[in-house]
Amino acid sequence: MNSRSLAVVLAAGKGTRMRSRLAKVMHPVGGLAMIGHVLAAARAAGVGDTALVVAPDATWPQKLAGEAAVYVQSEARGTAHAVLAAAEAVRPDHDAVVVLFGDNPLITPATIASVLARVEEGADVAVLAFEPDDPTGYGRVLLDESGRVAAIREERDATEEERAVRLCNSGVMAIRTGAPFAALADIGSDNAKGEFYLTDLVALGRQRGFDMVWQLADAEEVLGVNDRAQLAEAEAVFQRRARSKALEVATLLAPATVFFSHDTVLAEDVTVEPHVVFGPGVSVGEGARVRAFSHLEGAVVSPGAVVGPYARLRPGATIGADARIGNFVEVKNATIAPGAKVNHLSYIGDATVGAGANIGAGTITCNYDGVHKYRTEIGAGAFIGSNSALVAPVTIGEYAFVGTGSVVTDDVPADALAIGRGRQVTKEGRSPARPGADRSAKKGSSS
Amino acid sequence: MNSRSLAVVLAAGKGTRMRSRLAKVMHPVGGLAMIGHVLAAARAAGVGDTALVVAPDATWPQKLAGEAAVYVQSEARGTAHAVLAAAEAVRPDHDAVVVLFGDNPLITPATIASVLARVEEGADVAVLAFEPDDPTGYGRVLLDESGRVAAIREERDATEEERAVRLCNSGVMAIRTGAPFAALADIGSDNAKGEFYLTDLVALGRQRGFDMVWQLADAEEVLGVNDRAQLAEAEAVFQRRARSKALEVATLLAPATVFFSHDTVLAEDVTVEPHVVFGPGVSVGEGARVRAFSHLEGAVVSPGAVVGPYARLRPGATIGADARIGNFVEVKNATIAPGAKVNHLSYIGDATVGAGANIGAGTITCNYDGVHKYRTEIGAGAFIGSNSALVAPVTIGEYAFVGTGSVVTDDVPADALAIGRGRQVTKEGRSPARPGADRSAKKGSSS
Amino acid sequence: MNSRSLAVVLAAGKGTRMRSRLAKVMHPVGGLAMIGHVLAAARAAGVGDTALVVAPDATWPQKLAGEAAVYVQSEARGTAHAVLAAAEAVRPDHDAVVVLFGDNPLITPATIASVLARVEEGADVAVLAFEPDDPTGYGRVLLDESGRVAAIREERDATEEERAVRLCNSGVMAIRTGAPFAALADIGSDNAKGEFYLTDLVALGRQRGFDMVWQLADAEEVLGVNDRAQLAEAEAVFQRRARSKALEVATLLAPATVFFSHDTVLAEDVTVEPHVVFGPGVSVGEGARVRAFSHLEGAVVSPGAVVGPYARLRPGATIGADARIGNFVEVKNATIAPGAKVNHLSYIGDATVGAGANIGAGTITCNYDGVHKYRTEIGAGAFIGSNSALVAPVTIGEYAFVGTGSVVTDDVPADALAIGRGRQVTKEGRSPARPGADRSAKKGSSS
Repeated sequence: MNSRSLAVVLAAGKGTRMRSRLAKVMHPVGGLAMIGHVLAAARAAGVGDTALVVAPDATWPQKLAGEAAVYVQSEARGTAHAVLAAAEAVRPDHDAVVVLFGDNPLITPATIASVLARVEEGADVAVLAFEPDDPTGYGRVLLDESGRVAAIREERDATEEERAVRLCNSGVMAIRTGAPFAALADIGSDNAKGEFYLTDLVALGRQRGFDMVWQLADAEEVLGVNDRAQLAEAEAVFQRRARSKALEVATLLAPATVFFSHDTVLAEDVTVEPHVVFGPGVSVGEGARVRAFSHLEGAVVSPGAVVGPYARLRPGATIGADARIGNFVEVKNATIAPGAKVNHLSYIGDATVGAGANIGAGTITCNYDGVHKYRTEIGAGAFIGSNSALVAPVTIGEYAFVGTGSVVTDDVPADALAIGRGRQVTKEGRSPARPGADRSAKKGSSS
Repeated sequence: MNSRSLAVVLAAGKGTRMRSRLAKVMHPVGGLAMIGHVLAAARAAGVGDTALVVAPDATWPQKLAGEAAVYVQSEARGTAHAVLAAAEAVRPDHDAVVVLFGDNPLITPATIASVLARVEEGADVAVLAFEPDDPTGYGRVLLDESGRVAAIREERDATEEERAVRLCNSGVMAIRTGAPFAALADIGSDNAKGEFYLTDLVALGRQRGFDMVWQLADAEEVLGVNDRAQLAEAEAVFQRRARSKALEVATLLAPATVFFSHDTVLAEDVTVEPHVVFGPGVSVGEGARVRAFSHLEGAVVSPGAVVGPYARLRPGATIGADARIGNFVEVKNATIAPGAKVNHLSYIGDATVGAGANIGAGTITCNYDGVHKYRTEIGAGAFIGSNSALVAPVTIGEYAFVGTGSVVTDDVPADALAIGRGRQVTKEGRSPARPGADRSAKKGSSS
Repeated sequence: MNSRSLAVVLAAGKGTRMRSRLAKVMHPVGGLAMIGHVLAAARAAGVGDTALVVAPDATWPQKLAGEAAVYVQSEARGTAHAVLAAAEAVRPDHDAVVVLFGDNPLITPATIASVLARVEEGADVAVLAFEPDDPTGYGRVLLDESGRVAAIREERDATEEERAVRLCNSGVMAIRTGAPFAALADIGSDNAKGEFYLTDLVALGRQRGFDMVWQLADAEEVLGVNDRAQLAEAEAVFQRRARSKALEVATLLAPATVFFSHDTVLAEDVTVEPHVVFGPGVSVGEGARVRAFSHLEGAVVSPGAVVGPYARLRPGATIGADARIGNFVEVKNATIAPGAKVNHLSYIGDATVGAGANIGAGTITCNYDGVHKYRTEIGAGAFIGSNSALVAPVTIGEYAFVGTGSVVTDDVPADALAIGRGRQVTKEGRSPARPGADRSAKKGSSS
């Protein structure tokens, strides 16, 4: 059972090649930190416990909110040394330890389960291997005549014949607790860098008669991210997977231009037009349509609703069934009830818009006074004239009507008409617009 | 002559794998339903008549507005059975019947014409074949020593040698009227599903001495769309074709990010920047420029005009020569005369904007009262100050001037100045903005 | 030394296949005319002088502002004839002439330097060669037994054996001054078109015992742009290079959807979200974030600032450290001081926004009166209420407060409160919005 296993996730590397202030494993893929992907995959594989090994100065583990027990590797002395930093996480009821890497965001639960299964089936050590198109630079997994792992040979130590082997070591390894795991303490550091390498467990195991097997993974699953080009590559694989999954139920007119997050949920018969970005926390209901150039984050789009083009839904936006959010409209922390329409050039924040209400172009909820935020409540069936500003806290009653260009500072009762604007004055012959006209009055456009 | 031919288009399949409420053949590619592509290709190939075979419960054929005679296949009993459902569409003056598929949106007129030509040249049956990269799963077209079609062998019935054949059956077939077409009625249903297969015509034809030939098509032309991944694939092929065609005359800075519809027209020297979507019904005139992030649908952009970035042109938008539509501007059912400018953050709907008029940022035409739509007429050379709302029906005369922030409810004559806004009042020392200031007056921004 | 060399850039071709009014070499790649790329590459290679050969009717060289001496080729009589049109540009202190092409925008400084180096090392002629995937149509570079250039054979004149050669002539050539360059005058025009071909120098050189060598370039470097499909191809290569370079320091979530200009500068730890366009003249500071769907041109984004999604920065926009430009916001010729916020639906043009100022949604600076532009100055800590219009020239003092929906035409002193809008009037029971209500008052939304 995977639940009788411990995952040790190594995340103490410096990540210098990222050239970033952000810790390497905190760089996001699909809107989730890489380390989050690895922890989630371990969890989904049914691993019972997780230990995270980090560098002494790492502050980022605080953001993981207890998803894993955290162990500090005092010095950077190699992968075996790192695993042993979490040795006390191994409990008597653990049958196996699986070593994972915080910069392998694409590893899947099935793959983690598959190496653990090999230990469960009797192996002492199970090496996760892969076959890259070009194995140059990777350690080769050498097999004995029975097909078991005989050695892991680093490129620099390999003979020409060994270099021709395409089976490579991913670094991921499942180790039986007891003698095999205990052998980690016997790994030496007699090498150029004076470090303790996890791969040396194989040489020890060969001496001690461990049953060592290998399991094949897709090369892309074990892609290690060391720089931003590889980060972009991992993101690309993530997006390809997400698009394939989405295409099972939804129409994506141009999959390559749609970007998903790790937790995006699309129902059946959703249509997503080209050029759409889903940030974290979005779900879209059956038959809804997300039009081109839309950006959604932390938002719920109910069945039959249409958003965009150019809709921006920010966290807390809930768009009701058959509601309509149009172009150049921003909705934040607001509930738009079924059938309501906010079609053009509006900002709706910290608000409730009632069923069937019609919000005119250029409407703005003024929710902020520089210090606090306030709410705007708009009743069902209300009609807000274009270019109106609703100064929160304010309530517009059901079927109330706000005249075009109004600034509404006081509540408007149900069925009332509110208007707050200057009266039009027209002065014949006074326009400065015609060439040659007196221009003294002419001010006030934009260009 | 192709005009002496009948196309029978099969569209009675259930399309279960689409997982959609929308009928499979009504899913769009390039903004046109798949079935529309097939009918248009048949028409362009010069086919004289078209019969459409649909399932008993299909309601979608009503939307085709008489583009084809519709026949109902009473039960789903195979492709030969489906073709025979349209048997009465065959008239004495038809020389040939070509069988097409409603879910093959990429077939070209030239290819349809090419199989018909083979019958015209004397063949009894012409099979449209293709050579996929991987033929697994397709029926193989087996040839006799003279290079004519000897059999169509389904994968499951094929010998190893036959499986090595790469020539595959697309399903499309041209059949001479008379004996060859009549033979369809003799096809049996002695197979696992008890269905009548069109491909069995070949076996019958072999017995009866029909002259059976084959014609090669590009594999992508006969791509059948059965699920949304294949729909996305078909869309991608469509877009690749459309981009190649556009590149003959227009500059596309980033072709892969530009999406065309089936009827987009670009004149010479048009420039299209990255990230642009053309919905149906758009034409762009010589030397015009469509800037990044623009979305056009049902719109005419005249020579020399510049739209975008972030311009949204909706149906009925006509942008005059050298006019300018800027960022975050929506134009719907409106004519913008030559040289007029709507540069920023505006909504112009149900309106006419005169030549050379200047529409300030944030201008909104208020065309809707919740029930009806009204028009706004803006004269040549008029100047609309920023943040103005024009409440339709309303007319702004030539060279009239509307002051910033006005709500215009009454007509403004030519050369008149109209202003409708509150007067500024300034209270010294009363700002609540400085930290520590009295905040009682502070309300009204957005965040 | 490259400085003792002359580059002769041929740009007299008609470019008919571009089907454009714009001269072929003026079509931009990465926001810079192709000829600009070639001139910049020559400069960066350290070439001492540059001569440009153009057609008699070319007016575009005037736009190059003296980057190269311009010579007119009186008639289109071939490449050797074109080079000789610039013969008088060769000065006694020039050791070598390198012939470049105005429609080769992807050639790199290193490659130009490499052919010149061959002459410096003693060769008389150095031919730049490449190995295309498919050499069909290119002239082949034939070598003698010592590996030196023996001939350049055009496809039509090649034997079958010669056609199998994959080494092709790019056209670029470095020629020692003195006898080798002088030999250009001896090239004849005894060929189908009666033109003088530069490649014939090789045949002459063979006769005269010149030392002729070749140098290999990437095929993509010598891509000649003759039509818009090739222009798009060149743009794609340019963008691929620019993305690779950006990924050394910045995170690009979706590199393929980000478009750079030739001079874009990104500092370390910049994040660029999907769907971003960088026009010419943009620099982004350390740790800044450019969110999705943003369009920047001629703008500076300071460290820690966040712009977008849907931010449009136009020339002269300077965004201060940790400032924030939000969605549907356009900034032009304006300085936004550190920590200021312009979060939604605003137009800020010809303006200064002070440190920490908060600009409400829908704010518009009215900088234009139809003839002139005026400036808006907003002080530090000021608070501009939503939907306000600031009519320039106007100054808003430090910590001043502008009420929602105001039209500000007069200066507002520091710490003052300004308001300019109609007062709200509410009429109970007068709304026309409820079905069945009296509709006479109902006007004024948009749809």
